[in-house]
Amino acid sequence: MPKETKEVSESVIKRMSFYSQILEKLKTKDVEFISIQQLEEKFGLNVIRFRKDLACFGEFNMQELVMNQWEVDKLLSKLKKILGLNKKQKAILIGGGRIGTALTDFNQKEKNSEVKIKSVFDNDPEKIGTKIGELEIKPVSKVPQVVKEINPEIGIITVSNQTAQQVADLLIENGIKVLLNFASIHVEVPEEVYLQNIDLTLEMRKLMYYSNS
Amino acid sequence: MPKETKEVSESVIKRMSFYSQILEKLKTKDVEFISIQQLEEKFGLNVIRFRKDLACFGEFNMQELVMNQWEVDKLLSKLKKILGLNKKQKAILIGGGRIGTALTDFNQKEKNSEVKIKSVFDNDPEKIGTKIGELEIKPVSKVPQVVKEINPEIGIITVSNQTAQQVADLLIENGIKVLLNFASIHVEVPEEVYLQNIDLTLEMRKLMYYSNS
Repeated sequence: MPKETKEVSESVIKRMSFYSQILEKLKTKDVEFISIQQLEEKFGLNVIRFRKDLACFGEFNMQELVMNQWEVDKLLSKLKKILGLNKKQKAILIGGGRIGTALTDFNQKEKNSEVKIKSVFDNDPEKIGTKIGELEIKPVSKVPQVVKEINPEIGIITVSNQTAQQVADLLIENGIKVLLNFASIHVEVPEEVYLQNIDLTLEMRKLMYYSNS
Repeated sequence: MPKETKEVSESVIKRMSFYSQILEKLKTKDVEFISIQQLEEKFGLNVIRFRKDLACFGEFNMQELVMNQWEVDKLLSKLKKILGLNKKQKAILIGGGRIGTALTDFNQKEKNSEVKIKSVFDNDPEKIGTKIGELEIKPVSKVPQVVKEINPEIGIITVSNQTAQQVADLLIENGIKVLLNFASIHVEVPEEVYLQNIDLTLEMRKLMYYSNS
């Protein structure tokens, strides 16, 4: 894990990831330079926050932090280095239901995804042996063996609320330190494990507040 | 929209939604009372933040804000009132691909969901007329008519990046003021529209930083 981890908040990492996405899109459109004003107007970036975010990392000197124009390629390289996007990472996914299938399919269709789902597991006998794109669903009992073989950095949990904690424990026991959890329960993990939650029920619920007119 | 909207941040709303989920789970387990300590230990709640969050709303008096023990049912009712969870809301979803299908299916299986997806649209002739659970996929040209008929509060965008802005514009033109967008582009919306983004590519990318060991 990079040195900065402890000092840099998750929101900074989220925004840095967002900046890198914008720059990649600009690069595919052959944009060589981008001004701070354009970033603000076209992508809704907050310039002050953008500069503060960059300042969290040792990659940028004072002169760069106040620049009004950036070379897309150069800035993107720095962001990629900070975020660790230079090397591909491997994930395994547990739970071959609708959400798991959608995510695996989506991941296979993304050409340049840095995270690649390499193996999918489920305990449903009707699912084991069937395929999502090019991946065959394996029984959960095979997780330890597959982890040893492919050494994935990331575990994705798309099982029901009832089994999410058990699956998280299994992944952690097998040495996986970064988890992405789609179940809508509070999953307990040890301090050295990074857990990211995407709770679709919660996201829907949040909308309710804003749609009460 | 409730009066508080402008003063209360999205993070408060997100946490309030999370508290309501916890309380609902306790209620299904017939728990009548819960202590602040239990909320902290079992669900990872930060007590100080919890009290500060409640204090953002007029529903709670000073005495309640310092309570160490809550009646589950009473607290849940107040949270539901604040979040507007007392009445069901209707959503339409545009984009019947993998993510859209997963989300619709997931929504139909959730018995007590306050947001119900009522209609699904796509422009792919192979998808139009097919069903996701009980919902038949309709052509996007039918959006204005269906919006008039069922008057949905929420629009969910699960189309490709290329068409997301166009779909957002269509939903807004038809009077929908709350959008949930799964495309990974910056969608422009007028100030009076509430836009919530769930960008799966970005979520995966964020994981990279933490898995660089």
